[in-house]
Amino acid sequence: MISKTSVLLIIFMMRNIQCSVMKKLLLILLLSPMIISAQSMSDDSLFIHKLAVNILSSDASYNNLHHLTKNIGGRLSGSPQTYLAEQWGAEAMKNAGADNVTLQECMVPHWIRGGQDKAFVTYKNENGGQQKYALNILALGNSVGTGPKGVLAPLIRVNNFDELEAKKNELSGKIVFYNVPFDDTLINTFAAYGKNVIYRGLGASRAAKYGAAAMLMRSMTNTPGNYPHTGSLRYLDSIKNIPAAAMGLEDVKKLDSLFDKNIPVTAALYTNGQMLPDTIAHNVIGKLKGTEHPEQIIAVGGHLDSWDPAEGANDDGTGVVQTIEVLRVFKALGYQPKHTIHFVLFANEENGTRGGRKYADEAKRNNEQHIFALESDAGGFTPRGFSFDVTNAVSWQKITSWKPLFTPYYCDRFEMGEAGADIGFLKVLQTPQAGLNPDSQRYFDIHHAATDVFENVNIREMKLGAINMAALIYLVDKYGLN
Amino acid sequence: MISKTSVLLIIFMMRNIQCSVMKKLLLILLLSPMIISAQSMSDDSLFIHKLAVNILSSDASYNNLHHLTKNIGGRLSGSPQTYLAEQWGAEAMKNAGADNVTLQECMVPHWIRGGQDKAFVTYKNENGGQQKYALNILALGNSVGTGPKGVLAPLIRVNNFDELEAKKNELSGKIVFYNVPFDDTLINTFAAYGKNVIYRGLGASRAAKYGAAAMLMRSMTNTPGNYPHTGSLRYLDSIKNIPAAAMGLEDVKKLDSLFDKNIPVTAALYTNGQMLPDTIAHNVIGKLKGTEHPEQIIAVGGHLDSWDPAEGANDDGTGVVQTIEVLRVFKALGYQPKHTIHFVLFANEENGTRGGRKYADEAKRNNEQHIFALESDAGGFTPRGFSFDVTNAVSWQKITSWKPLFTPYYCDRFEMGEAGADIGFLKVLQTPQAGLNPDSQRYFDIHHAATDVFENVNIREMKLGAINMAALIYLVDKYGLN
Repeated sequence: MISKTSVLLIIFMMRNIQCSVMKKLLLILLLSPMIISAQSMSDDSLFIHKLAVNILSSDASYNNLHHLTKNIGGRLSGSPQTYLAEQWGAEAMKNAGADNVTLQECMVPHWIRGGQDKAFVTYKNENGGQQKYALNILALGNSVGTGPKGVLAPLIRVNNFDELEAKKNELSGKIVFYNVPFDDTLINTFAAYGKNVIYRGLGASRAAKYGAAAMLMRSMTNTPGNYPHTGSLRYLDSIKNIPAAAMGLEDVKKLDSLFDKNIPVTAALYTNGQMLPDTIAHNVIGKLKGTEHPEQIIAVGGHLDSWDPAEGANDDGTGVVQTIEVLRVFKALGYQPKHTIHFVLFANEENGTRGGRKYADEAKRNNEQHIFALESDAGGFTPRGFSFDVTNAVSWQKITSWKPLFTPYYCDRFEMGEAGADIGFLKVLQTPQAGLNPDSQRYFDIHHAATDVFENVNIREMKLGAINMAALIYLVDKYGLN
Repeated sequence: MISKTSVLLIIFMMRNIQCSVMKKLLLILLLSPMIISAQSMSDDSLFIHKLAVNILSSDASYNNLHHLTKNIGGRLSGSPQTYLAEQWGAEAMKNAGADNVTLQECMVPHWIRGGQDKAFVTYKNENGGQQKYALNILALGNSVGTGPKGVLAPLIRVNNFDELEAKKNELSGKIVFYNVPFDDTLINTFAAYGKNVIYRGLGASRAAKYGAAAMLMRSMTNTPGNYPHTGSLRYLDSIKNIPAAAMGLEDVKKLDSLFDKNIPVTAALYTNGQMLPDTIAHNVIGKLKGTEHPEQIIAVGGHLDSWDPAEGANDDGTGVVQTIEVLRVFKALGYQPKHTIHFVLFANEENGTRGGRKYADEAKRNNEQHIFALESDAGGFTPRGFSFDVTNAVSWQKITSWKPLFTPYYCDRFEMGEAGADIGFLKVLQTPQAGLNPDSQRYFDIHHAATDVFENVNIREMKLGAINMAALIYLVDKYGLN
């Protein structure tokens, strides 16, 4: 790294040196780490360098993300934007140079928010006067609405499922408020998410089992502010489906201050969610035909759908755009893959993962050989490495031997772990797979919230992700995994 | 990493398992990577884990950064804010538990901007009509002002010093416009900065040598938008000091479109910069006395001064706050260092580095033994590793043996290189040193621009930097470097 010190030193030396040759030598000295590493580049590192220079110099990914987020916006399964996004995705992959683009039909859940979610809290102040204020909420995806009359009921706070069980006899007719804080002490924020997501997923049914009328939850974020973060729930069979919504952290703080003083709190909840009959959506699949093993497929993708209250920029606009960018850069550099590559924009990751399931089902039905799959669905942040779901020891050894090629791109943290929600279904075909791991610190600032917008993507960071994805696909294509 | 897939799997399994013991087992399985790593923790990793939990759970660094940026703001050497920041820094270190805090006086340059910088461009449109528009500029630090009449002169564009030399006979009386783009293809943005900073540093004098009346430059950033980025210049002796300022990239684009059409352009420049006599500032030094080797000193620091048009949040509010956080967490955990630790908030890094120089001069004069120094001055972004300026092979071997301890905190990229502008002066004492290397992608979005504000710091990322700094200081203190 060239620091301020060396820069100041150079400036100082420049002042005192009149000879222009000496000045040039100094400049070369300043840049020498780059020159030396260029000389020692192998063919692979040279090619990856070309990928990097092309992607960093191109406006394509910026323009693609801008269009997807600003001109199309939120694109929840079944919404009109779903089909605009599919058309756009197909067009973008044709423009990027796909041999052909197919739309793979799949049935998806069709949940609609149905209107603006509202909630009000009422309590008595110290003088016995009635106080009322609004909460900023978002209904959880797949949840039922309250109906126009709303749900008006006392609020009961629980900090975890143990407390829920302990209070099970008090829940009937009440609105359960799950106040489960994000664990700030976990370094990787996905670990904190993983700890708490069960409350979003099953909290409503667990409360309904004891007669609760609705549930409200603390959003799964550690970010100050008051943005609610939505996300999907699942209702357990044979338990009444109750309305459910999330609130931001400032509202949590206000509620907590009432509960901490043992002040009885009543909430009125108005949500309009509705699950319509399943509808049609599509995986958008761009293809490059392999020159040596056309029957063997490498898949790379992100998901096209996103939550409705935002632009789905980091979740997963960046994954979509990076996928298209891998295709674009291969064509731009004239790279002809040995294996067939599928560039897949998956449908319906957010509230059903039906796209990923469909893709794997069809691959199985058609006896396709998928030799590798890569997904980007953890945000467009600066990449740190990959999470590999690879069981074969030879494959793993090969993969780890590539690590030094990723070091210049700051993406050499190779871990074993889950790869991605969409490509995960390819495990029925024993497909080795990987997920891009961007830095996790900022993801849950904006995840499923209104702040997941274009402006919260750093374009260079997104591009770095695309570079490393392209490099990994290139290496798997060139060397295989066996 | 716990992915969406595993979360969905868990939810799915939870649905179908009635036994609560089984459910708990599943949750333990979900969290097992954390549990296993906890069991294998050595004393050092356990202590570093305590540092992490304490820092991530504390509001102190958030509050400190908020106060420094919002209540004090930009604090260029000699400004009233300089002294407010010094008082605040001393107080903050006392509150954090310093044995004592001293103010080390040093003389600093006292440059003032003196008013709002303005520039206007005039040219003739296709119909011969006069067109005029304003540029958004910032005078460079240390530059002379134009005087109230301004400088009105034809603008001449050069893309580098070679072009300047080629056009040397055309420069007399003109305003030279340096249009040197940031090299987007370099992965570490500090390399791009290092390539171009000489234009900011010496561009004015190089142009003045050939009679130029003033210089305007493209800001050193690759960020779309129109924020000018300031920074210091140095005038070469015996060459006339001419006014100099930077503009944002949108203004560059507009100017380029005129130059590309060979349209003659005139600029009017109004700046008010003035170098007043040197004035007094202070390094603020908090101390923890060593229990075993009180005469041996470890220094850790950031710089307290910052450019005037912003809040100096990432440059270097975060370095200052991280330094105080290392002190706070050591005291909070009852850690008693073997060696004396100096927590140093350096004066005047931006336009003189007199604080760093003074600190080293005094250390030398007093025959102090400085066994290690650490600086954070590259932004409060997610940390990637450290840059070590260490020549002793034994020390380097020891340092690299610690790498695994930093892996859980995503900060294990250990490189050889420059450590920091302020602590660099300690090289006269052969002090081994290191600089925290945060991710570089976002730094030049906001560097020396009006956007370097509190809102552009991610508090968790800043805290992660503090954790890793504390860990490194702890290890050097415990094991030494010999």
